[in-house]
Amino acid sequence: MRSDFDLGRFGLVSGSSLPSAQLTYETHGELDDEGSNCILLPSYYTGTSSSYEPWIGPGRLFDPAEWFIVAVNLFGNGVSTSPSRAHPEIAGAAFPDVDIADNVIAQHRLLTHLGVKRIRLIAGWSMGALQAYEWAARYPGLVDAILPIAGAARCSPHNFVFLEGVKAALLADPTFRQGRYITPPVQGLRAFGTVYAGWAYSQEFFRHGTYRELGYASVDSVIQGWAADHEQEDANDLLAMLGTWQRADVGKHHPGGFEGAMGDITARAIVMPGSTDLYFPQADSEREVELLQDGELRPLVSELGHIAGRPGVREAETAQIRSAVQELLRN
Amino acid sequence: MRSDFDLGRFGLVSGSSLPSAQLTYETHGELDDEGSNCILLPSYYTGTSSSYEPWIGPGRLFDPAEWFIVAVNLFGNGVSTSPSRAHPEIAGAAFPDVDIADNVIAQHRLLTHLGVKRIRLIAGWSMGALQAYEWAARYPGLVDAILPIAGAARCSPHNFVFLEGVKAALLADPTFRQGRYITPPVQGLRAFGTVYAGWAYSQEFFRHGTYRELGYASVDSVIQGWAADHEQEDANDLLAMLGTWQRADVGKHHPGGFEGAMGDITARAIVMPGSTDLYFPQADSEREVELLQDGELRPLVSELGHIAGRPGVREAETAQIRSAVQELLRN
Repeated sequence: MRSDFDLGRFGLVSGSSLPSAQLTYETHGELDDEGSNCILLPSYYTGTSSSYEPWIGPGRLFDPAEWFIVAVNLFGNGVSTSPSRAHPEIAGAAFPDVDIADNVIAQHRLLTHLGVKRIRLIAGWSMGALQAYEWAARYPGLVDAILPIAGAARCSPHNFVFLEGVKAALLADPTFRQGRYITPPVQGLRAFGTVYAGWAYSQEFFRHGTYRELGYASVDSVIQGWAADHEQEDANDLLAMLGTWQRADVGKHHPGGFEGAMGDITARAIVMPGSTDLYFPQADSEREVELLQDGELRPLVSELGHIAGRPGVREAETAQIRSAVQELLRN
Repeated sequence: MRSDFDLGRFGLVSGSSLPSAQLTYETHGELDDEGSNCILLPSYYTGTSSSYEPWIGPGRLFDPAEWFIVAVNLFGNGVSTSPSRAHPEIAGAAFPDVDIADNVIAQHRLLTHLGVKRIRLIAGWSMGALQAYEWAARYPGLVDAILPIAGAARCSPHNFVFLEGVKAALLADPTFRQGRYITPPVQGLRAFGTVYAGWAYSQEFFRHGTYRELGYASVDSVIQGWAADHEQEDANDLLAMLGTWQRADVGKHHPGGFEGAMGDITARAIVMPGSTDLYFPQADSEREVELLQDGELRPLVSELGHIAGRPGVREAETAQIRSAVQELLRN
């Protein structure tokens, strides 16, 4: 069940603010008396707090009988405050820049409100990983462990360029009208999804026909599926989150910059880049792990590209995540 | 100096035809009495016969004092018969599907006309490599050696999906009007170039700031440069060549399919995939070399991604190509 946490007028790191801001979340299980059994799952691009459900339940990664699991929605994802769901002052094209740091600050306020004293683990896929790093750098005393999957501690220059590409495909549709669309920019949204399809998986995924395992009958079905999925999204929401992603940098507000922020992280980290991820490449994670006090690189061996490790996709990847989770939650 | 070779009504493998077709080409040096000193350089996507000039000249890869160098233009590239330069019957959106095989058949007719009896080497970058393979499979007795650089013998499924993405970005601009544009679809062309920018180079190229070596001041300059370059292209020409590329398969018309066609190639081949190419990945070349009678894999070690080996870009890559050329042209 989703709940809304009211943040009032929420000040952003940019100096702007979100009036009547809401952070929407779901919890599973109960917080223990010490407030110390929390698992935090921050949502990812085009995902919601519900997207982590395949990880939650008896016999799954996180059993609510043992853990107090909090899954939160990114600002801009259409569930928490977003261009498509906002006070008129900031609705649609007027939505201000929201950073990963803003999300994490709001989540911290929520967890404090819920009585959480200690976070045992923050696990996140893709943009969820961006948030896990930001949490660990910003609130080192609170976070025991992080498991960033198919992500990074900042948006790399190449990742930025890839995102400019999907964005340009959407903006090529004049129906978008600088965000003041009257009807959805359907062609632009479909183009966005079509461009994205080339980036989401690895070359091997297509070469070996692995798409069949994910329910796609053909290469064309993959393309059509991604086009159709993105046609359903709100264009301003997509662009708001895309900006959040592009600006992501754990060191942005740290006096010691990126290295300083990474060095402050005391949480134990198992860093799981997808071994064939095209835009959060393993090589970036290798560099980042070296900056951590207690980090271990454990590539998620998979030909699913970036999609490796997305909740509910395939057991081969979930099994690798499971053993990392078990290790991080062992006392 | 460019010359036009008239093909008359040129029948295509699809059964369609190009009326008043012209294959435009440039030659450097003189054909020897035996007709046996020809080097063929087939053009690549958004390139022309002139794009190979950095390879031609005294002290360069191919010295016209020694070789009869023929550089040819792909149908659809705006120089040979193309949507933007065609008989009214096939101009613009009416341009029929032209395959790599059609290009090679036309080039074979040209070389026969010029008196060429033996091709010492076909060297081609990117789509030039697609043509080199097709030549060697279709006319094995004529071709001594091939040097496919940053290419392949067919368009892989992932490569196809990447191309669907750049195409979708262009088509999202309604100014395109199904190819019947009155003014150029500027936003679509710029989006095409912006999407392409993410694919052209490697992740490391951006991480290490290697773009500065290529004259780009910043990541944004790379994006703007690619957008501006593609804004100058004719949209129907871009799509005609893109289709040629997507349909490329050396085994398409061979009774033994891909393996059969590759096995027929008698030419000595040095296969040079770019070691960080995102859409003609080295792994594909590794598989293809194994199918050749006399092929050697020699990756072009570079962080330029697909752009590695494009004529005139950087000496580090040209040096690797030079030693392969020298080896292939040694008697």
